[in-house]
Amino acid sequence: MSQPATASPVAPADVLAAIAFGPDGLVPAVAQQHDSGEVLMLAWMNAAAVAETLTTGRVCYFSRSRGKLWRKGESSGQVQRLVELRIDCDGDAVLLLVDQHGVACHTGRRSCFFRAARGGGLVEIMAPEVSEEALYGAGHAGHGAAGGGAT
Amino acid sequence: MSQPATASPVAPADVLAAIAFGPDGLVPAVAQQHDSGEVLMLAWMNAAAVAETLTTGRVCYFSRSRGKLWRKGESSGQVQRLVELRIDCDGDAVLLLVDQHGVACHTGRRSCFFRAARGGGLVEIMAPEVSEEALYGAGHAGHGAAGGGAT
Repeated sequence: MSQPATASPVAPADVLAAIAFGPDGLVPAVAQQHDSGEVLMLAWMNAAAVAETLTTGRVCYFSRSRGKLWRKGESSGQVQRLVELRIDCDGDAVLLLVDQHGVACHTGRRSCFFRAARGGGLVEIMAPEVSEEALYGAGHAGHGAAGGGAT
Repeated sequence: MSQPATASPVAPADVLAAIAFGPDGLVPAVAQQHDSGEVLMLAWMNAAAVAETLTTGRVCYFSRSRGKLWRKGESSGQVQRLVELRIDCDGDAVLLLVDQHGVACHTGRRSCFFRAARGGGLVEIMAPEVSEEALYGAGHAGHGAAGGGAT
């Protein structure tokens, strides 16, 4: 799973032209920790989010629940540095190799995929590493606002 | 990345209840090779596809382009055996740990994510391991029919 340590700035035009955004202007993006291979989360990007991510090297999504750009970690500090952006054969999905600072999930777990179908039902296979309160402060609205990953 | 070698049959009801299918009845599903950690593809599942996958241990998607269940490998032989199904925090994405037989991509590449944004644009970082003709025979309609992964 070794990848380049740092993404070079990439001119977004060619990349944007190769992405088949859906009717809602969004494409699903999978974030994977570049060295361990952990799949951290799935979120959505619009063209502006892809362009900003490529330009700044810091991952930016589009929050469907908030209807605006979501710079990962802007509330929680749990930022994702881009190592490499990849596109699938049809251009309708994006894979982000990232370096995740801290935890990806708003629940304080490393990955959002912490529930596994085993035996009779769903089992939690990952414990929180940090509390939601520590991530967002008391009385936060992190979850609803985030729609998944730590904001 | 070590996982159980074989998925036990799982009663689908609890799992289905925890998945937030979209307005179109679908949820995005990421397939990851269980031992190497390679992200192989992103496709879509409806409730019937999830239930069949859990029951049979062989991954079944829903093909958006064909509008029907798509038993991965039914045309190409490149089947995916389910090792474990996971659900994210909001239930609106699925991670499939699989054992991929052969190649995941209809282009004959191991992964559908074979184009990387590097330097001036997109670079192919993976070569085909098998020809499309070998996968589907001459005159196949594999790509259009598959909408991504090897059918």
